Amino acid sequence: MAITVVGSVAFDSIETPAGKRDRCLGGAATYFSLSASYFTDVRVIAVVGEDFGKRQEAVFDARKIDTRGIERTKGKCFAWEGSYMDDLNEAKTRSTELNVFASFEPKIPESYRDSKFLFLANIDPVLQRRVREEMPDVKLVGGDTMNYWIKDHRPALLEVLKGLDILLINDTEVRMLAGKDNLVQAARAVLELGPRALVVKHGEYGATLFHGVGPKAHGTKCFRAPAMLLEEVVDPTGAGDSFAGGFFGYLASQPELTPGAFRRAMFYGSVMGSFACERFGTERLQQLTRKEIDDRFTVFRELTHLD
Amino acid sequence: MAITVVGSVAFDSIETPAGKRDRCLGGAATYFSLSASYFTDVRVIAVVGEDFGKRQEAVFDARKIDTRGIERTKGKCFAWEGSYMDDLNEAKTRSTELNVFASFEPKIPESYRDSKFLFLANIDPVLQRRVREEMPDVKLVGGDTMNYWIKDHRPALLEVLKGLDILLINDTEVRMLAGKDNLVQAARAVLELGPRALVVKHGEYGATLFHGVGPKAHGTKCFRAPAMLLEEVVDPTGAGDSFAGGFFGYLASQPELTPGAFRRAMFYGSVMGSFACERFGTERLQQLTRKEIDDRFTVFRELTHLD
Repeated sequence: MAITVVGSVAFDSIETPAGKRDRCLGGAATYFSLSASYFTDVRVIAVVGEDFGKRQEAVFDARKIDTRGIERTKGKCFAWEGSYMDDLNEAKTRSTELNVFASFEPKIPESYRDSKFLFLANIDPVLQRRVREEMPDVKLVGGDTMNYWIKDHRPALLEVLKGLDILLINDTEVRMLAGKDNLVQAARAVLELGPRALVVKHGEYGATLFHGVGPKAHGTKCFRAPAMLLEEVVDPTGAGDSFAGGFFGYLASQPELTPGAFRRAMFYGSVMGSFACERFGTERLQQLTRKEIDDRFTVFRELTHLD
Repeated sequence: MAITVVGSVAFDSIETPAGKRDRCLGGAATYFSLSASYFTDVRVIAVVGEDFGKRQEAVFDARKIDTRGIERTKGKCFAWEGSYMDDLNEAKTRSTELNVFASFEPKIPESYRDSKFLFLANIDPVLQRRVREEMPDVKLVGGDTMNYWIKDHRPALLEVLKGLDILLINDTEVRMLAGKDNLVQAARAVLELGPRALVVKHGEYGATLFHGVGPKAHGTKCFRAPAMLLEEVVDPTGAGDSFAGGFFGYLASQPELTPGAFRRAMFYGSVMGSFACERFGTERLQQLTRKEIDDRFTVFRELTHLD
């Protein structure tokens, strides 16, 4: 079933111990949609400037991603510059130019309205909520956010959380959102804010799915997927969005959302996040095959399975 | 088959967000042997002072741990004082008094010499090597170390590594020992120093087993066990030694050291580490049942298994 994703399409300038790249095609909606495109149909809502040309468009086209919801406007694309020279697990932002993104007003094409899955990537919660309200009939809504919105736009974010089925954030964000240090306690507090499920991304240590607000956070209430052990992390940019794309894309490809489907989705999320790190920008995500993805899924299974 | 462990028996004074305890019975050999005692016979080599009395002895006796190798001497036991108030994942040492441990000369009782498993807990590598050489017939030798020995006693430590089958250390230590940031590259470099297998403990994120020096660090060359998601970490002191005790104890209880046995041992290690954190000091490890241990093993299996 088709997924609509709303988020950023951007140019990223990235420095890591493996090298440097100027103006790679990036942005949360780009990583998410490329990753999800290996599992299901994807439709993007975003805004770009005049520097988004045929070469960038071709990246989406090659993966059959619907870009009718990408608004083209005067000005320049969102541009980010960051470095991972100190710590591969955390980007140090050198500059952020919002450009056309500063006045982003998401517009949902009519042809997107029958999407059964909606993903609200990390943007202003006011916009996330507006898109959510305009698509009342979706079957499953996922979302992401970041420290900036958690700290300075909490009331708007809390409104978004009420309308989410699944929130995908990282360790630091869940602790900040809940105001609790213990991960289990923090997860439970976040689940009480609205989402039916929470995926906490742990970077190189994988991710944990929490679902239901039970008295104990183990057994079927929790599920942990490992991360790939990579010999070289070339560029971790977009790994979290690629995780979300794999996770959500796999779910959207399933006839039923069983507990088993959620577990496999966690593994596929981790698989797609690992591919994202192997090359700069979206390079690796542009050129995968479903066989490569499934082979790595098998490696992940081997990595943690007892029998 | 019986395990001999050499290491510290100590008194720990601990402060965590959950409270404060003075002079709990602790030390790596204590945590290791209590943990391993649920799986097999354990024999301890250590040194204690006059403050080690009947109450402390009773803790070992209750678990049928052989203490004939614990030398009693004039003076006081090794005493450590630490706090986890800033970070539950890392102890801040307030004071260390080596006391009788400063002149520790491990003496191996004759009755220990038929042990098939040997664990060299974190002590001076010169002593680790001496014990190793005096027990040439053991089937499997494991060891631990810490940043202090890695930085300032490297030549002696490198000699120990040559005689080890399995080294169990944490993320920071493996990176420091290898001088590499990437975990897979660091693990491979450490395996080239001698040990046939390396277990890297990731604290709240579980642990990874690396074995063999293959071209790729995935598939059967790597195995990752999750950690328990605990709602409250009362006291993380000794969690790593308890992991080692569960891991090694389980292996020693198995008729054959198959790849499956190593995988299950990783899970049992993680299980025992999680119990250690639930109460101050060794309180929880003193009072477990094998059923509680196996029930938690099942929870761990559920936590990561797809099918």
